[in-house]
Amino acid sequence: MDKAGIKKLVDELAGLKTGLYQKDFLLTWKQTAEDLRAVMLVTEILEEMYRANIKARPFNGGLAVANFRDKSTRTRFSFASAASLLGLNHMDLDEQKSQVSHGETVRETANMISFVTEIIGIRDDMFVGEGHEYMWEVSESVEQGYKDGVLPQRPAVINLQCDRDHPTQSMADLMHLYKTYGGLEALKGKTIAMTWAYSPSYGKPLSVPQGIIGLMTRYGMNVVLAHPEGYDLQPETLEIAARHAKASGGSFKKVESMEEAFRGADIVYPKSWAPFSVMKKRTELLRAGKGKEVEALEKEGLAINAKFKSWECTEKMMGLTKDGKALYMHCLPADITDVSCAAGEVAKTVFDRYRNPTYKEAEHKLYVIAAMMAMTRLENPARTLGDLLAKGEPRRLL
Amino acid sequence: MDKAGIKKLVDELAGLKTGLYQKDFLLTWKQTAEDLRAVMLVTEILEEMYRANIKARPFNGGLAVANFRDKSTRTRFSFASAASLLGLNHMDLDEQKSQVSHGETVRETANMISFVTEIIGIRDDMFVGEGHEYMWEVSESVEQGYKDGVLPQRPAVINLQCDRDHPTQSMADLMHLYKTYGGLEALKGKTIAMTWAYSPSYGKPLSVPQGIIGLMTRYGMNVVLAHPEGYDLQPETLEIAARHAKASGGSFKKVESMEEAFRGADIVYPKSWAPFSVMKKRTELLRAGKGKEVEALEKEGLAINAKFKSWECTEKMMGLTKDGKALYMHCLPADITDVSCAAGEVAKTVFDRYRNPTYKEAEHKLYVIAAMMAMTRLENPARTLGDLLAKGEPRRLL
Amino acid sequence: MDKAGIKKLVDELAGLKTGLYQKDFLLTWKQTAEDLRAVMLVTEILEEMYRANIKARPFNGGLAVANFRDKSTRTRFSFASAASLLGLNHMDLDEQKSQVSHGETVRETANMISFVTEIIGIRDDMFVGEGHEYMWEVSESVEQGYKDGVLPQRPAVINLQCDRDHPTQSMADLMHLYKTYGGLEALKGKTIAMTWAYSPSYGKPLSVPQGIIGLMTRYGMNVVLAHPEGYDLQPETLEIAARHAKASGGSFKKVESMEEAFRGADIVYPKSWAPFSVMKKRTELLRAGKGKEVEALEKEGLAINAKFKSWECTEKMMGLTKDGKALYMHCLPADITDVSCAAGEVAKTVFDRYRNPTYKEAEHKLYVIAAMMAMTRLENPARTLGDLLAKGEPRRLL
Repeated sequence: MDKAGIKKLVDELAGLKTGLYQKDFLLTWKQTAEDLRAVMLVTEILEEMYRANIKARPFNGGLAVANFRDKSTRTRFSFASAASLLGLNHMDLDEQKSQVSHGETVRETANMISFVTEIIGIRDDMFVGEGHEYMWEVSESVEQGYKDGVLPQRPAVINLQCDRDHPTQSMADLMHLYKTYGGLEALKGKTIAMTWAYSPSYGKPLSVPQGIIGLMTRYGMNVVLAHPEGYDLQPETLEIAARHAKASGGSFKKVESMEEAFRGADIVYPKSWAPFSVMKKRTELLRAGKGKEVEALEKEGLAINAKFKSWECTEKMMGLTKDGKALYMHCLPADITDVSCAAGEVAKTVFDRYRNPTYKEAEHKLYVIAAMMAMTRLENPARTLGDLLAKGEPRRLL
Repeated sequence: MDKAGIKKLVDELAGLKTGLYQKDFLLTWKQTAEDLRAVMLVTEILEEMYRANIKARPFNGGLAVANFRDKSTRTRFSFASAASLLGLNHMDLDEQKSQVSHGETVRETANMISFVTEIIGIRDDMFVGEGHEYMWEVSESVEQGYKDGVLPQRPAVINLQCDRDHPTQSMADLMHLYKTYGGLEALKGKTIAMTWAYSPSYGKPLSVPQGIIGLMTRYGMNVVLAHPEGYDLQPETLEIAARHAKASGGSFKKVESMEEAFRGADIVYPKSWAPFSVMKKRTELLRAGKGKEVEALEKEGLAINAKFKSWECTEKMMGLTKDGKALYMHCLPADITDVSCAAGEVAKTVFDRYRNPTYKEAEHKLYVIAAMMAMTRLENPARTLGDLLAKGEPRRLL
Repeated sequence: MDKAGIKKLVDELAGLKTGLYQKDFLLTWKQTAEDLRAVMLVTEILEEMYRANIKARPFNGGLAVANFRDKSTRTRFSFASAASLLGLNHMDLDEQKSQVSHGETVRETANMISFVTEIIGIRDDMFVGEGHEYMWEVSESVEQGYKDGVLPQRPAVINLQCDRDHPTQSMADLMHLYKTYGGLEALKGKTIAMTWAYSPSYGKPLSVPQGIIGLMTRYGMNVVLAHPEGYDLQPETLEIAARHAKASGGSFKKVESMEEAFRGADIVYPKSWAPFSVMKKRTELLRAGKGKEVEALEKEGLAINAKFKSWECTEKMMGLTKDGKALYMHCLPADITDVSCAAGEVAKTVFDRYRNPTYKEAEHKLYVIAAMMAMTRLENPARTLGDLLAKGEPRRLL
């Protein structure tokens, strides 16, 4: 896209009424349609500026703090990449190396790391019912610190995955659909099957399926959820999906098998997650510091999983979808049968066919994060991005 | 403060005769009054430039290396924030991931990490009689490397806490008093009680109380030290405090109880530290690699602590201070009774009343570190900061 | 050197026909003479621009990713320093904190960390026959990702030490000789003794001696290799050295003792490495996760080492060299007798005499890495560096 094309996106952004400045991005369902649209536009603007080799750095320093309470490759790198893109310095909050282990309060830590901090990104998906609460506590702490004049700016908390939602993932997924089908209008009436799939590895969070049903129902899509008995999502998220579907003219339903969900689907998203009851038990054990019991429970969880090995996205399963050509999606890494495990979420041939699209899907995430940073921290993102575009300094010398 | 106001501070700085360029910042008591005043001025200039959204980056790259041999949140983030502020890249020297564990000499490591390094920040407070020596060895190594033409610049070593002093903390504390009372002159005759307080957690370093009595006595303050028997500070630091008090027209005395110290005080600084004898024993055991004995010793230390639970900064204790309204100070994190522990250094209500002031106290630290970086690495800080101020480029686009 | 002098180097660079753009730097023996010469020139240009305080940042952000699978101080810091020099943001890929441990493929990880990545630096020297293969897999992955349009740019893989070569080290060593003797022509006919030396520490990789004999034979030098029985290098590298020597008019021979190698040598490079057979066994055990057996094997290796304590670079040994004044080289850290160990690779007095030269030798490495970054990622390095030189912005304000 040339500069004129990017300028049009900036102009569209300028026309939106957004309210993310000085706020956080924790759950997509707490955001207005215009705010989500603005994040999408800024995502696209930043992607195109990168490709057009235009420097998009509103910041000359300041910190983007990453607090990962669980393992991560792509989100960790996406966050660091977004910081680098915008001119922020990336800093890891490693709780093992900090005074946090000396009993410091969340409020204090949040303020202590924030004197020149614009963004605090948090992944906390290990404890059901806690990850989101922790993010809120951090948010309230820096909000109060800012109001009290302790902090010269109000850092935005960005949810890099909690127990409820994984908004940087679901927004990246939405960007992928937007790009694949050519706009939000084109998503109306499309059917997406969000289904459980078998995995022999550890108990995965529920945030991705919850995020998908909570977000895609806003765009008039027909969202079909399927999972084996015992793998229910948090009830609140089902209600949100139903509400969104009703409002957008789409639909939301739950079915009992992968086959049923796949039949006629335009898009499939087969992905493993842990049984909610196991996750809750796990949280209690982790909280009580019972490491051995956690291990035993995880084994138990995997043993339950093993009863549902037929929930695999095979070629035969793909054959049930619309014209046998549904778009396969995944947040990655997928458990690929005969590649990363003996039996997993998806057949090798299916994954291979969709590898590049899933990689593109993943690429959006870094720009989504950067867009959330820009929307929460810039008073007038359209003006600032417009200025950077007009200036047109090269991102790298040629 | 507007640009004209900041310019006045720069002009005042220009009038000082300072000698920190090409040197380290290890102990406040080795610095001249003018050098300390210069660090305070640069601290204030950088704080005000940050708030006025003016870019204060003399550096386009180069490293600020952090070597933390003990846990840290606020100093770690303060150091990284200061580096980001000035345009340096932050790099952690993690001795576990380095060849240091292969028996490399300090001299060699110091040179190997310094080819484009401007600053080496070190926290080494675990070993009594060793932390400071280690910093000196690093300093002498890079000094020699610079003289020998091995290093193209002479990195400055900044003490981020050793066994003797915690200069970035005590200077931040001084800035806090300076701001609270409106100048250094206003500190003359004020009484500050530096007292031990009970803590149920680990054995804390002596560097903070030593740093406070060594620094505040230079400004005509009446410094009162109090601690239970067996919690003596290093004798050298008492002598320094006495000498400073005499020279400045202030006073320094030791009393036997928290009550006595608090009575009539303008400022109180109640904070736990470990018995010196325990710390010395601990050093020997650590050096000998006797992990179990260290654990036993720490338990012993905490058992001794427990005899002095009455050393708590309660409301009643605060009532003894001047008009019952002394300024409460702490380097954080404080052990707050009923918050971070069952019984600790300070009552919840007292801490809550002073939370915001202690957070502001903490904020100064990052600018103090940045000021030490600027003073040790810029030949003419007033000129360079003046140029940056005149240029007035925005720190972040609006 | 003044700007005019640096300009001459840039002009010389402009005259070379190079092919490193969009490629990797894995093995020196896969590079053309002109490419190696170009890396040397850019190394020198960047060193001189640094000393002349000229900003040499073609990049405004983007990542330089470090993946260290073994301990490192100087290479880790060299890589981070090079990134800082060129304007890239340094990011560590810590496989323990990543999904790599969840069974993700190399291809996927390589792409996931590369959306805004210019450089991936890898150290992987623990597994004989695997380190190099791993780098190739990463390289092919990002090459494919770039071709498929998944990656907007093609990150270059830089070998920071594998089981075969240590090109950033050998090129730094070459720069050291180039500077010491005043040009490549001056190296013709010089004799360099690459010899094994005794070390009581762990089994060191073979990459340094292999890198040295593979590179120095290209410049008409007489390369003499010596090691005890059982310490053979990989046969392939001996063939490469022989071929290079023939082509350049130099020579390559193997002798049986340190004495024989040192006799009449202009340059000596005494350095320990592990027996190849032990390394191979070690690889198998590590692969099988047999930690205890690895420990036993390492003890066995050190016991074999101990039979060759006489392989030490003593004053007497140095007396055998040309005029008793050969240039002593080492990649550091050296095992220095009576300093880092009771008996090691080199006598204290010998090392002390050559300490500063070895430190200068080490300094080149960061600029070599930066030069490899520039050569692989800039389409026309002479133009870009020429532009930066002409602009002449200060690297740091004075």
